[in-house]
Amino acid sequence: MLAEKKLDFEPQIEKTWERRPGFLALNPAGLLPVLVEDGGAALADVTAIVEYLEEISPETPLLPAEPLARAEVRRLVAWFCQKFHAEVTDHLVGEKVFRRLESGRNEPDSRRIRTGYAHIHQHLDYLGSLTERHGYLAGGLFTLADIAAAAQISAVDYVGDVPWDAHAPAKDWYARVKSRPSFRVLLADHLPGLPPPRHYADPDF
Amino acid sequence: MLAEKKLDFEPQIEKTWERRPGFLALNPAGLLPVLVEDGGAALADVTAIVEYLEEISPETPLLPAEPLARAEVRRLVAWFCQKFHAEVTDHLVGEKVFRRLESGRNEPDSRRIRTGYAHIHQHLDYLGSLTERHGYLAGGLFTLADIAAAAQISAVDYVGDVPWDAHAPAKDWYARVKSRPSFRVLLADHLPGLPPPRHYADPDF
Repeated sequence: MLAEKKLDFEPQIEKTWERRPGFLALNPAGLLPVLVEDGGAALADVTAIVEYLEEISPETPLLPAEPLARAEVRRLVAWFCQKFHAEVTDHLVGEKVFRRLESGRNEPDSRRIRTGYAHIHQHLDYLGSLTERHGYLAGGLFTLADIAAAAQISAVDYVGDVPWDAHAPAKDWYARVKSRPSFRVLLADHLPGLPPPRHYADPDF
Repeated sequence: MLAEKKLDFEPQIEKTWERRPGFLALNPAGLLPVLVEDGGAALADVTAIVEYLEEISPETPLLPAEPLARAEVRRLVAWFCQKFHAEVTDHLVGEKVFRRLESGRNEPDSRRIRTGYAHIHQHLDYLGSLTERHGYLAGGLFTLADIAAAAQISAVDYVGDVPWDAHAPAKDWYARVKSRPSFRVLLADHLPGLPPPRHYADPDF
């Protein structure tokens, strides 16, 4: 979102599970994302940060203008950040990445992984049905809904678990997202010791 | 929020766990709240609905004007809707009300109830520390943060589990909320077969 709006920023790594006191002072909930402004003000909570950036930087809108259309984008943001996350990302990325990072253990729970695989197809069908006609989730405009969906899907793609071949319309949408300059920077980001599959950063995957 | 903004509405009961097809057509996520506009448009997701109402009805603002202050209110909304809900409401109201409604079973899990009791004190302290000086959570203005906090706390108070006597500043804040005309209507609402404690609807509790 910051890159789409051409706002300068410096990303920082925060291992939230270490519950660093300096980080808890910025956000007592102990969660990411947190945005620290140049003046020192710390903003916490993803909705608070996203709505703030949209308010202070309206020149490159990531929400449509009309209230009902804005509500539909926000519904889709919740769909991907909450429902897709709970049904897919939390199972697959949770087991394959976060379990290892947080505890050093490395035996994924195969039942949870199967649950993630079982749910991803209906989500990719839904995404494809929404993006097929006009290109992006809420129509022709690239919005916060596309960012939310791409954030979840890129995390699952990093562990190689997106069944692209069975979901051509969703794949076409993701190729469009991947070709945006804002997104290419994210795709260059790697976890030490856990490289992504070869197609991960390739826009022509 | 609708009553604060003096917008006419007709509440409907929806037993989401029955997954009624007509309801899933309004919100495929199967969750409440859903708002159906007079023209028939259905809005789903609490953030989408709340931001929509604030946009179409700005005359009675429930968010402050300044972007950083708006972000702080939205952070507090997330605190109560997510963190308080996960640590307190879901344990206490989940066990004492929803378990019975959804499954007809009536044996609360005492371990989950103890977890809810263990967490509520720090939340009431936090709420009291924020409201003590200026009256409401974000200062002198009654905002969405107060609505979010009161929604969680009134549900826990309905099952008699708010330790008011140990938290005078939080109690003072809740007395202010209870005396608002918008809130008195909510307090008259009862679950069949599960009456609230006597103090529940009393502003001088």
